[in-house]
This record gives sequence, structure tokens and C-alpha cells, in this order.
Amino acid sequence: MHGLMQEWPLVCHKIIDFAALQHPGREVVSRSVEGPIVRTTYSDVRDRSLKIAQLLAREGFRKGDRIATLAWNTALHLEAWYGIMGAGGVYHTLNPRLFPDQIAWIMNHAEDRAIFVDLSFVPIVEKIASQVPTLKKIIVMTDAAHMPETVLENVVCYEDWLSGADGDFAWVDVGENDACGMCYTSGTTGDPKGVLYSHRSNVLHAMMAALPDAMGVGARDVILPVVPMFHANAWGLGQTAPMIGAKLVMPGGRMDGESIYELLDAEKVTFTAAVPTVWLMLLQYLEQTGNKLPHLTKVVIGGAACPRAITEKFEKVYDVEVVHAWGMTEMSPLGSLCTMKPEYADRTGDRLMDIKQKQGPAPFGVEMKITDDAGNDLPWDGKTFGRLKVRGPAVASSYYGGAGAEQFDDEGWFDTGDVAHIDEFGYMQITDRSKDVIKSGGEWISTIDLENLAVGHPDVAEAAVIGVAHPKWDERPLLVIVKKDGKSPAKNDILSFMEGKIAKWWLPDDVAFVDEIPHTATGKIKKTALRKQFADYKLPA
Amino acid sequence: MHGLMQEWPLVCHKIIDFAALQHPGREVVSRSVEGPIVRTTYSDVRDRSLKIAQLLAREGFRKGDRIATLAWNTALHLEAWYGIMGAGGVYHTLNPRLFPDQIAWIMNHAEDRAIFVDLSFVPIVEKIASQVPTLKKIIVMTDAAHMPETVLENVVCYEDWLSGADGDFAWVDVGENDACGMCYTSGTTGDPKGVLYSHRSNVLHAMMAALPDAMGVGARDVILPVVPMFHANAWGLGQTAPMIGAKLVMPGGRMDGESIYELLDAEKVTFTAAVPTVWLMLLQYLEQTGNKLPHLTKVVIGGAACPRAITEKFEKVYDVEVVHAWGMTEMSPLGSLCTMKPEYADRTGDRLMDIKQKQGPAPFGVEMKITDDAGNDLPWDGKTFGRLKVRGPAVASSYYGGAGAEQFDDEGWFDTGDVAHIDEFGYMQITDRSKDVIKSGGEWISTIDLENLAVGHPDVAEAAVIGVAHPKWDERPLLVIVKKDGKSPAKNDILSFMEGKIAKWWLPDDVAFVDEIPHTATGKIKKTALRKQFADYKLPA
Ligand SMILES: Nc1ncnc2c1ncn2[C@@H]1O[C@H](COP(=O)(O)OP(=O)(O)OP(=O)(O)O)[C@@H](O)[C@H]1O
Ligand SMILES: Nc1ncnc2c1ncn2[C@@H]1O[C@H](COP(=O)(O)OP(=O)(O)OP(=O)(O)O)[C@@H](O)[C@H]1O
Ligand SMILES: [Mg+2]
Ligand SMILES: [Mg+2]
Repeated sequence: MHGLMQEWPLVCHKIIDFAALQHPGREVVSRSVEGPIVRTTYSDVRDRSLKIAQLLAREGFRKGDRIATLAWNTALHLEAWYGIMGAGGVYHTLNPRLFPDQIAWIMNHAEDRAIFVDLSFVPIVEKIASQVPTLKKIIVMTDAAHMPETVLENVVCYEDWLSGADGDFAWVDVGENDACGMCYTSGTTGDPKGVLYSHRSNVLHAMMAALPDAMGVGARDVILPVVPMFHANAWGLGQTAPMIGAKLVMPGGRMDGESIYELLDAEKVTFTAAVPTVWLMLLQYLEQTGNKLPHLTKVVIGGAACPRAITEKFEKVYDVEVVHAWGMTEMSPLGSLCTMKPEYADRTGDRLMDIKQKQGPAPFGVEMKITDDAGNDLPWDGKTFGRLKVRGPAVASSYYGGAGAEQFDDEGWFDTGDVAHIDEFGYMQITDRSKDVIKSGGEWISTIDLENLAVGHPDVAEAAVIGVAHPKWDERPLLVIVKKDGKSPAKNDILSFMEGKIAKWWLPDDVAFVDEIPHTATGKIKKTALRKQFADYKLPA
Repeated sequence: MHGLMQEWPLVCHKIIDFAALQHPGREVVSRSVEGPIVRTTYSDVRDRSLKIAQLLAREGFRKGDRIATLAWNTALHLEAWYGIMGAGGVYHTLNPRLFPDQIAWIMNHAEDRAIFVDLSFVPIVEKIASQVPTLKKIIVMTDAAHMPETVLENVVCYEDWLSGADGDFAWVDVGENDACGMCYTSGTTGDPKGVLYSHRSNVLHAMMAALPDAMGVGARDVILPVVPMFHANAWGLGQTAPMIGAKLVMPGGRMDGESIYELLDAEKVTFTAAVPTVWLMLLQYLEQTGNKLPHLTKVVIGGAACPRAITEKFEKVYDVEVVHAWGMTEMSPLGSLCTMKPEYADRTGDRLMDIKQKQGPAPFGVEMKITDDAGNDLPWDGKTFGRLKVRGPAVASSYYGGAGAEQFDDEGWFDTGDVAHIDEFGYMQITDRSKDVIKSGGEWISTIDLENLAVGHPDVAEAAVIGVAHPKWDERPLLVIVKKDGKSPAKNDILSFMEGKIAKWWLPDDVAFVDEIPHTATGKIKKTALRKQFADYKLPA
């Protein structure tokens, strides 16, 4: 027997409809790609999205068509999202920091039919357009005055194009399980894999994200998503902010400390989110200038483990609450957020910082477990680590095109590829990637723990640990070090610094010094490249 | 093209699974029906729910079976909910304040197959069991020591019964659109109508309810639902609290000021919710004793318009935030919550109280509009009032058995039967019920406005306004008054008190004094009865 409740599909256009009805005048402030700060509202964003949808439909784009965006975070990019979804299409965010060839590879894999592109990225599209045969239309997101000369065909100037629509259009009818968005993983461990979000997953993720113990944001917040819309769905903020009616502040292409500070201050931002490296730049800038953060109350930090020093600076010096979060493109992306349950709520000082090193508990809507290689559940004791597996309505069920099928089991669990432990109160901590963890004599060694320890040495600028083959133990850790300018520590200096702080058998067998450690386009250490570099490396006997 | 996201149905047992996994030790504290305070946890609640589900399945209860509860708010009642839902059944809450015949009528209408009953309500079941032929099993929620002698057949003692299960059971497989709960409306305007909740509607409602601008509750909250589980689904708190991992404090059958205060204080309650009359009793008690509310931060008040004096006392004297809410059994029940958007956020004092008289904006998941009788949209100007219509995933699509079909239109809008205006920032205010509003010469007069005004007179204890037939104007208002003890105001005293405070043509044509105004089982003025009482009444010429 079914309940007698309304069919009200969870579709994304309801989010922008809601924002335009309940929060029509709420501002969306952008640092435009052309330079100036531009102010608009949810009501305008909706009006212009409707026009985009109308134009796309008129020009023959159909339900399910992938339409790429290559753009910074601005109101225009947000309009493009809702316009594409409103036409029944699938917004496909591209990371402009990838090499043009990688972008072309991803576009071909997704079979993108059109692209919305920022002025600054027109040169990229000029390089690759001919390699992407499905691409039928290029919309340069600027006005006539700024429209560049280009050799591209089928190109239009966004504002001119929009002026051809009157917005007298109804959102294309879609079901909640229809695809609406697409994002490829960062490609840290191999080829990027395509994740295809549905309307339902985006709406549910946005609700989960707004909950008090997740991001905890409401209409009185002013939200600055520094995390790019092309990085894991902007952590859902493009849906969450209009759903709750929060003012949005979009940083455009400038994410240096000064530019971010300017927005935080001028727009009285209360909530912001980004990867650790962005915050390093901001904190450095604040230290140099002596500026403070009187309006900001909360910062979500994730995408990579948040160094303790960043958390401490924010909380102790600037009185800003840090929420350490873990997520994946495959999870829309939020998987856990380290907010305090009553069990930890009265902690302060160092004891609180200890907890904030963890990636935290999963909110309702994310099921989590850790298993050994054979799939047996492991205990939640805060020590035993294993493969981290998840289930939920905003978790991928497969990759676009069928890659990585082995990561999905028949009970619906997705193997995240991360290795973690979970404590008795449900607080998860990432200890490694399963492709990076070192298997030494049947036991696991966390490379992240070793790296965190090594960078604590005063002469070390960056550290990476990889496993190298060992005749007796299968694998043993090699520590790769970039020295700080003007320093030249000996191998043994570093090893004896580490000794006693970890189990003896975890101590790296050797230290190698390099000028640079390879990184991905999202700034993560690229261990695949590092392993290639040290493929012929022989450990000392 | 579908998204490639997991199928993860929104079913209620996931809520209690989540609570037991992520918040196993979180307390559920009850004032038991037997008297003492009883402490349990979400982990226990889940274990015992599993046993209930196991027993119900073993005894032949099947998916979709309605299983009644006649009980106060306690952990046992909560276990019964999750046990019934976990067996694929439909919990059907009964209001013990109804006359036994009304309860029997509702049970027969729902065709309840079993009932979980509190010790205190066994006499009611004894009276009606023979009138409900579908009823196959009666579970008295107590232990052997307290089990009463009873003439009832097919009766078991809850704790004895539970001891026959080992909990080795998997929740019965249900889809998210399957029915899981049922509640009849209060019967204020006619026969009670059955609302059939689905798993999906309950889960989505719980998420909506927890959002920062709705109830805004999290794991560090201690939630006391004074609003009964048999009244409109306990405003969703039986799902919301475990979903967010908040400690629950259940008041049992004692809702007087002293008993509620005891729990608020001893359990350090941070959040509570109930109808205005409960808060009147508490505030009176606090005034008499001089006690304060140091732990409580927020109280949600709804079910009937919240008098300004209550809001002011809570906010100004006890520093507790009042959230005025509107809802209906048909809406699971939350429809709007008067929290502050930025447009009103800097108001203080009387100007803030003015806003808190409104029932507030709708959260995401509730669409709202006002129309005239012909169905034309009315403007959101804070003055023009009309029929309030809603849509949403937790709004009924029809009544059980098909009553009231005229309230549902073909675009999915449900006519709430309430009359309201909405202001430019989306703040809704109820002005009347459509069955009560007085149509005088084609224009509408709000009976609630007149009543609120009349009770402001120092000699008036209670006031109700009804329309009576008028040869020229169709209907004109009659003011019915219960005088305060020892006071005897003249008709004209009251009318001249009202004059000048409302449009002249709104002034009641007459005043009638009565000893008592009839009320429903949920404490609302029963205007149907009052209209009957004054059916032959002739207005003065
Ligand atoms: N707070 C965090 N602490 C540690 N690691 C994190 C954190 N947040 C995210 N990560 C890492 O980032 C990963 C998700 O990143 P993303 O989806 O951008 O692609 P990727 O995993 O880096 O690339 P690919 O899957 O293509 O190899 C997680 O699986 C985890 O390894
Ligand atoms: N904050 C509020 N202010 C004014 N009225 C309210 C408020 N909250 C609820 N109500 C009234 O209560 C109604 C919902 O109550 P409920 O579902 O318990 O049944 P009922 O409408 O009283 O009974 P029935 O539908 O059987 O006549 C709303 O439609 C509205 O009239
Ligand atoms: Mg990955
Ligand atoms: Mg009603």
C-alpha cells in the first residue's frame, strides 16, 4: 500500500524557483572575469537561466545532452548550470587547470555538445575544439564589448545570445532520476572517471549539506565558495546556497590571499569553503597585513587532509570555526564533516584540535564502513584501519562509460579507494589511499602519517612516501623529500627525528631528496608519477 | 538518460539504523506512564524495534497493515513506531483525548489490526474493542508487575511479549513510497480525515525540519517534544531527533507546568515544541515559582496562533527564542516556520514581535500560494488574504478513503482550508479558516483578528466569532464571549473597546455571553458546534 503523499520530484529547477520566490532580492556577488565586482540576485539568476534553457531547447539541445562549462565561480556560471539543467541537459564542469589534451580527452569521453566558456579560457577552447567532434556550439560568457576575436566556429557572445530570448518558457520536464550534472574525478590515481549526478542526488545532497551538523548554513549566511564549481560540484554549494536563500559571493578567478580577504571583508562573508592550500595563502596574507576576520564564523576545509596548523590558526587567532570535511567527486562530494557530537563537545584547546584532525562522522544519508581486503567489517576503535566503503543517495553507482566496476559491490557499497579508521563515536580519519598504502609483511603502513610526521622537521618543505619493492617484506617505505631553501638535512637527521614517534617497523628504509614532487591539477601529490620516477630504485640492503 | 547514482530509498528504518550506528549511546529519557523516569538509548530503541518487527512479522502482520498506538510520548511509543514500520506496517496514532466512540470510528475507518496501548488507556480499549472487528491483538505497553487485570481478549504484556524475540531479523523490505504512518486530522471542521504518510515523506520532512532556518536542531541539542506523537506526527520529531542524533526527552502523560519544568531543568533541554496552551501553563508555573530556563534556547509554537504575550514572555523574560510555526496533519505537519531572513534579522523589541505574530516563510520542500475563490493568484503584499494552497513531497495527495477530494486540484495544489496573507518577503500569516471566515457583502472578515482583539479586553476570558445570516450582507459577525470570573462587561464596553482598531464594517453586529465555548480534543475552538448552538440566533435589526 502506497502512502497518500504528493508526487513532488526532487529536481534542481525547484531549487532556483524556490530561491527566486522566497529570496528574490538575495544577492549573488561575483568578481567577474572582466575585473569589476558584479551584483545580481537569485531572481535575476532564475530569469536568465530560463532564457538559457529556452535558447538551448530552441537550438535543438535535448534531454541528457552533456553541455560543458569551463569557467570560474561567478553568477554567470551558476546561471549556466540552472539553464542547462532547466533544458533537461547535463552540466559538465571542466577543470581549466588540466592540460588542454586532458580536457579534450574528457570532453570526448563525455561527448559534450556545447560549452560555456569564460573569456580567460577561450585560448584553451581554440586549442582543442577541432579535437572534439561532438562540440556544436561555443558560448563565450561575456558581453559584446569584451568579446575577443577568435578563429572558433559556432561561437556566440553570451550576452548577445541571451538577448534573443524572452524567458517565456517552462523548465523541460524531467524525472528526479534523470542526469543533471557531470564531473570527472581529479585523476590523482589514474585516468579521470566520470560521475553522473541526478537531480535527486543533487537535491538530497544539498539538503544534507545544509543540516546544522554538516555545513550548518541558513538564509542569514553569506557564503563564499572558493572551492571551484569545476571541483567536485563546488561541494554542492551551487545548490545549497539557493536552497536556503543565502547570499552568494563568487570569487571568479582570483584566489590569492588578498583577493579572498577583500571579498570576505567587503561582503561580510560568514561561511566559506576550500582546500587547504587556499587557506595557507589567506593566512599568510593576514599575517603580513595584520588584518582580521570579524565577520567569518565558519570555514569548511577538505579535498586533502587539513594540516593542524591551519585549523589552529583559524580557531585560535581568528576565532573562526574550522570544519574538516572529507569527500569525493563520487559522493557529490560530501562524505563526512568533523562537527562535534556531545561526546566531544566540551573539548577545548589541543584536545579539540586532536579531534579536528579527523575527517569526522558521516551525516544521515551517508552510510560508512571499513573492511579488510576480504571484505570483513573492521571495528570502530580509532586505530584499526581498512578500506573505507560508503553507500548513499548521493553516491555514484558506477562511472560513466563503465570504468572502475570493481569498486562497486553487489550490496551497493562503493569502495572509496581511501583507507581509514573510525573511532567509537563514529569519527573517521583517512590514513591513506588504498593504492598508496604500503603493505609490509602483510601489515599496512600509512604513507600520510609518515608524510605528516616528516614535514614537521624544520628543514623539510614537502614530503611524500611511496612503497618500493622489497624481497622479504614485499614493500617498504621510501621517503621523498623537498628541502627548504638553504637547508640541507642529512638522511639520518630526518629519520632520527621520526624515530620514537611511530612504530619502529614503520620507519622508512631510505630517504631520497628531489627538487620537486609532482602534483595534480587540483594540487594533490601525484604518487603514480612519483612511483614511476622511482621505479628502478633499489633500497639499501 | 538517468544519473549514475545509487538507489538508496528514503525509508524510515534507515533513520533508526543511523541513530544506533552514529549515536548509539545517545539517551532517550522518558517519564514513564508507571511514574519513574526511565533512561534508554537509540541503540536500545533500535534493538527493541527490531524485536517488535520480528514478532509482528512472525504473528502474520503484513506490509501495509495499520497498527494503532494509543499512547503518550515515551521511548516505548517510539520503539513501537519503528517496530511497526520495520515490519512494513503503518503506525496509526490515536488521540486518547477523543471520545471512545470517536476513537472506535477512526479505528474502523482505518481498519486497524492491532494496537499498542499505554497502561492508562486500557480502559478506553476495553470500552471499544468489541466495536472494532478488525482488531486482532492488543499489546499493553508495560511490564508484568504493572500488567492490569482485563477482560480484553488477545491481549499481551509488552515486556513479556518482547522477551519472546531475539531480534535476529532484517527490516521488512519496503519501497520509499510505501505507507508507513497514519494520523487523522483533529476534526475541528468536520469528521477527522485520515492522512497516510509514506516512508519518503517522513524522511524528507525530517530533513526539512532539521534545517537551520526550520527547527535548526543538531546532535548537541536535547529535544523535548511536548507535542504528542498522536498529534500530527509529533511535528516530525520522532524522525528528526534520531536522524540528527539529538537526545530525546519524552514527557509521558504529564504536561502541566511543573512536570515540564522538571524535565527542562533536570535534562538540560535545549529545544522544545508544543501548542500555545502548554506554554501558558509553563509560563504561569515559572511566574509562581520564580524559576528560570537557563538551558532552553528555542521553543517552537504552533497548532494554533501563538498569542503575542507568550512570545514576549519567552523572549524578553526567559531569553528563549520563539519560532512560530504553522502546520497541518496533512503536511506531516510543518508548513512554515517564522525564523528570520536577513530582511527582518536586525529587528528587535516590538518590531521583532510584530513579525513573530506571523506564521512565517515556507522552507524548501513547501510551495505556497494564495488565491481567490476562483483560483487566481493573489499578490504577496502582507494584506490581501485568500485561500492558502500548498504543494510538496510531505503534503497529502488525498485522504484515506477518499474524503475531501475537492481540496486537491489537478495541478497538485492542496487547499489547506486556511485563509492567509503573505508579505513581500514570503512571511505568511493565517487570518482564518475558510469555513470560518465571514463573507460580508462579498468581502472577507477575519474571525481570528476579531477574537484576538476581543480577548485584549480586560474582562474577557475567551472569545469566538462566527458568521450569522444577514438579509442584506449575507453574513455578519457575532462575537461570543466568556467573561472573566467576577467581571460583567456590557456588550457596548466590548464593542467600543474594539472600535477604531479595525475597519468599521468589521465590527461585530452583536455580542453574546456564554459560560463556555466548545473545544476539540486538541484544544481548538469548535466553531461547528458553536454555529449549531447559534443556528436560530437573530441579529438585532
Ligand atoms: N579531508 C580530507 N583528508 C584527506 N584526504 C581527502 C580529504 N578530502 C578528500 N580527500 C581525498 O580526495 C579524494 C577525492 O578527490 P577527487 O574526487 O577530487 O579525486 P581524486 O580521488 O583525487 O582523483 P582520482 O579518483 O581520479 O584518482 C578522496 O578520495 C581522498 O583521497
Ligand atoms: N500557528 C498557527 N496559527 C494559526 N492556526 C494554526 C497554526 N498552526 C496550525 N493551525 C491550524 O491548525 C490546522 C491544522 O490542525 P490539524 O491538522 O490538527 O486539524 P484541524 O484542521 O484542526 O482539524 P480538521 O482538519 O479535522 O478540521 C491548520 O489548518 C490551521 O488552521
Ligand atoms: Mg578518487
Ligand atoms: Mg484541517
